[in-house]
Amino acid sequence: MSMDTILRIDMGAEGGPKTTTQPLGDYAGLGGRAMTSLVVAAEVDPLCHPLSAANKLVFAPGMLTGSAASTSGRISVGCKSPLTGGIKEANAGGQAGQAIARLGYAAIVVEGQPAGDDLWTILINTKGVSFKVDNDLRGLGTYDSVEKLRAEYGEKVTFMLIGQAGEMMLPAASIAACDRELHPTRHMGRGGVGAVMGSKKIKAFILDETGTKTRQPADAARFKAAATIFNEGLRRHGVTGTGLPSFGTNVLTNILNEAGGYPTRNFSTGQFEDATKISGETQAALMTERGGEPTHGCHRGCIIQCSGIYNDATGKYQSKQAEYETVWSFGGNLGINDLDTIQALDRLCDDAGIDTIDAGVAVGVAMEGGLLPFGDGPGAIRLLTEVGKGTPLGRIIGSGAGTTGKAFGVERVPVVKNQALPAYDPRAVQGMGVTYATTPMGADHTAGYAVTANILRVGGFVDPLKPEGQVELSRNLQIATAAIDSTGMCLFVAFPVLDQPETFSAMVEIINGFYDINLTADDVSALGRKVLDAELDFNARAGFTALDDRLPRFFEEQPLAPHDVTFMVTDAELDAVFSS
Amino acid sequence: MSMDTILRIDMGAEGGPKTTTQPLGDYAGLGGRAMTSLVVAAEVDPLCHPLSAANKLVFAPGMLTGSAASTSGRISVGCKSPLTGGIKEANAGGQAGQAIARLGYAAIVVEGQPAGDDLWTILINTKGVSFKVDNDLRGLGTYDSVEKLRAEYGEKVTFMLIGQAGEMMLPAASIAACDRELHPTRHMGRGGVGAVMGSKKIKAFILDETGTKTRQPADAARFKAAATIFNEGLRRHGVTGTGLPSFGTNVLTNILNEAGGYPTRNFSTGQFEDATKISGETQAALMTERGGEPTHGCHRGCIIQCSGIYNDATGKYQSKQAEYETVWSFGGNLGINDLDTIQALDRLCDDAGIDTIDAGVAVGVAMEGGLLPFGDGPGAIRLLTEVGKGTPLGRIIGSGAGTTGKAFGVERVPVVKNQALPAYDPRAVQGMGVTYATTPMGADHTAGYAVTANILRVGGFVDPLKPEGQVELSRNLQIATAAIDSTGMCLFVAFPVLDQPETFSAMVEIINGFYDINLTADDVSALGRKVLDAELDFNARAGFTALDDRLPRFFEEQPLAPHDVTFMVTDAELDAVFSS
Repeated sequence: MSMDTILRIDMGAEGGPKTTTQPLGDYAGLGGRAMTSLVVAAEVDPLCHPLSAANKLVFAPGMLTGSAASTSGRISVGCKSPLTGGIKEANAGGQAGQAIARLGYAAIVVEGQPAGDDLWTILINTKGVSFKVDNDLRGLGTYDSVEKLRAEYGEKVTFMLIGQAGEMMLPAASIAACDRELHPTRHMGRGGVGAVMGSKKIKAFILDETGTKTRQPADAARFKAAATIFNEGLRRHGVTGTGLPSFGTNVLTNILNEAGGYPTRNFSTGQFEDATKISGETQAALMTERGGEPTHGCHRGCIIQCSGIYNDATGKYQSKQAEYETVWSFGGNLGINDLDTIQALDRLCDDAGIDTIDAGVAVGVAMEGGLLPFGDGPGAIRLLTEVGKGTPLGRIIGSGAGTTGKAFGVERVPVVKNQALPAYDPRAVQGMGVTYATTPMGADHTAGYAVTANILRVGGFVDPLKPEGQVELSRNLQIATAAIDSTGMCLFVAFPVLDQPETFSAMVEIINGFYDINLTADDVSALGRKVLDAELDFNARAGFTALDDRLPRFFEEQPLAPHDVTFMVTDAELDAVFSS
Repeated sequence: MSMDTILRIDMGAEGGPKTTTQPLGDYAGLGGRAMTSLVVAAEVDPLCHPLSAANKLVFAPGMLTGSAASTSGRISVGCKSPLTGGIKEANAGGQAGQAIARLGYAAIVVEGQPAGDDLWTILINTKGVSFKVDNDLRGLGTYDSVEKLRAEYGEKVTFMLIGQAGEMMLPAASIAACDRELHPTRHMGRGGVGAVMGSKKIKAFILDETGTKTRQPADAARFKAAATIFNEGLRRHGVTGTGLPSFGTNVLTNILNEAGGYPTRNFSTGQFEDATKISGETQAALMTERGGEPTHGCHRGCIIQCSGIYNDATGKYQSKQAEYETVWSFGGNLGINDLDTIQALDRLCDDAGIDTIDAGVAVGVAMEGGLLPFGDGPGAIRLLTEVGKGTPLGRIIGSGAGTTGKAFGVERVPVVKNQALPAYDPRAVQGMGVTYATTPMGADHTAGYAVTANILRVGGFVDPLKPEGQVELSRNLQIATAAIDSTGMCLFVAFPVLDQPETFSAMVEIINGFYDINLTADDVSALGRKVLDAELDFNARAGFTALDDRLPRFFEEQPLAPHDVTFMVTDAELDAVFSS
């Protein structure tokens, strides 16, 4: 089945949800973020309330998702964000992307809103789409929900679903995709996409790819030749070939801490004294000791294998291996040095369906506001447990760091466009500061990962402590990222792609071989720019101005130890990121 | 003592708070809102965090405050608002304004922020200013605080103070001024001014006017002649001469309900079936029966006397007579029809120090979100009790209606610039909709009270259900209001001033006689425009655009019963309010 259809689901139709399908039309050739952002920009009123029937929730596999291209299984989701008020694209691994792609859908566009309180599940398979009211799932976390859905639909399907946070429409609610073991651990995390799914009263998608095949390239020989070079590039590069498979993304803890760019105790200093206790190296050793899996692919066909299975002290499955940003948000950011605590917090977020970054930063802000002392692991666990229960405190945290700052009267609230900053302090990694400030997504490390040249010396070197060169670095990365996010490939391919010209060429050739087209490097760049322009235009129509492209003041005023540096990129430079 | 000095208090000075005084300089001739807004616009960075040391809290009596001009005792406070993010002026009656004016201060500008956690009181008398750490007041409501302060400072002083909400820096926290009986019932309510006072760690001002005299006019004969005409105009007009003294502002309940513009159960319909049970007429009768005072002046020298003393069923003082907007926010807006419940909620707000409008609208939004059923009076009392206790739920409510909407996933959230709409539905009182949308203050009925011509037929008639004429009406009222808010006169003088040309002339002549100047009507209008321009410019520099001058979408989409009307003033018309 070729991926040539858009599936529209109208949840607000008279008499219950209805579907229509249509050819790609103007959206032909798009995938992933390009698809979600262009659909949202074209079809959603930028001034609508994000939880209203006028918002749309758009799922799109990447251009290569469902094919044999390695590490290409990502699923994007887009909408107007309840957290930022702007456009949002979030993407995740897991199996959902491949299932949707193999079922032939280039996009699933969820529209409208049902009148009643019923909670729906949506089954998509080769026979089509069917809807079911399943109020028994109401109030369940993602783990319990998956348990029930597995019992009903078996092991050969996969799920996208929300936890209690999405049902409650909390602004930091996520949408879970499942990994190959059907654990609900791969989240479209940021910007409250789960709240929009909740506003449309959808608890879960059941995706059954039974009877479908791997998507076939138009020019098999060209595709295969390029894939061979590409895979070789990934295996050869230090980050994708050794660092990520061995230690997962959490390999970064020691690196960022040594660089003095590890935001500690709500961004009050740049190094955490106990970083080694929660590093990727320590985590991997512990996982091996307990019979977990430190090297694991979150979806079929990934050759990087940065994910992992984390077992508790008794050897029982607890959660996925927490990502670097999660280990940070609950670790150094809260002054917590215990991996089991951090993994428990990760699981609580996955279960309630809430972004681990905004949740961790919210807890840090609440700690600064006096709710708990920094370092109080049991307290943090109690707090995160409240999200799923829907207590008032859980609702505050689930509304994200910005709201938590208001409720606790805190001045140091690290958000841009109301979205929490991730695990790289913009004072010591100034290129990341440019990305946080200027991406249309709100503070987001994945939007333009300047850690590459600032810290890892991938794709060149730009001094992280100085403003020079950061604007160009961030701009180029944001454009490249928007393109990669459209292919369905994991962003981690960027490491070899930035360092190895032949791997970059091979990536473009994989697309060319798959579609039998002749994209150039410039075309890829143009695609990225086109996506960003659509997103920026949406945000402008939603009311965003240059003043929204700023870091919170304290980054300019409070120097960060140990380098005693402030964020020095000027406002005029920030404004030049997309104006040139 | 002439009101010719600006008192600056630096709470962040090395070694403890310090004061300086200075002549008026560029601020000469200003009072009230003109003073606070021009100081804030000139001296506060529009991009600062509202709770940071960079914000300033500016108190200013009106131009006539402290004089013998009737009904001229109001005190204004200004700052960057923690609720809206824009400029804020709030004003109140009570005795504080007269005390400050008689002590010779045209403005008190509080700057900086102390480093420690100590809570300060500030005594201002004829000897000067003295500071005291008084941590015993920490966590006390305004009533208990006043009790302690009375015991220490006696009965001949007055106070401005914050409750627990201000200490917690909640975005809807107010600052209380005391009435003549030293009840903390007259609040500078809107926009979170109490949070800014809390951020500067000031619990209370003790204002001792002992040894001062009524401010004397420069031309006593001219002043007195004008005052006689002015007072006669107030007594003669139906609203200020009869309606307000007899029934208080709550005389409006029956009127707005009959007009179908009484927002009921979180703005879902325009009439409340039990309006007569909570009307001003019912309230006044009950107050008389219980030995309260339905006719009472909130400050010395008021001849309108719209305030009142409300006793509980045992005849004991409970609270001031709740204002119309408060009776509405806890009455029809929540579906509550019991005056004792409403008065208890009013007292809880005064005590915790929180705006009754944002609090009531927040509770209504929470009710819509399923926290409590509409009509649940005991539940509402429990909820408001939580504000003072600082529970998570209390912090949500105390953060205002916008935040409450996020935490409870509610789409119908009646706010503009994140400030809650008051007691006039903009669909059935379209002129008020224009004011809500376009005033730099965020939704605020007092900024341009189009109820005059829309409903009361004061100053002409403009059909409330139609868009025609509303822009001009609102613009003129907003300009006039900015001027009146600068005189220290109560806004209620606008009723006779709008209807009686000679009373308007007398008002201008009172100022002329007091200062021995020759303002014309055009000069008064120019002052109002100057104030608004400064405020609009501040907001523009803070990032506000035309898109912030909009009502929430649902007012355009959901018709309001009984008139089945939506808000029909176009965006282009809204944009024309201040562009022409």
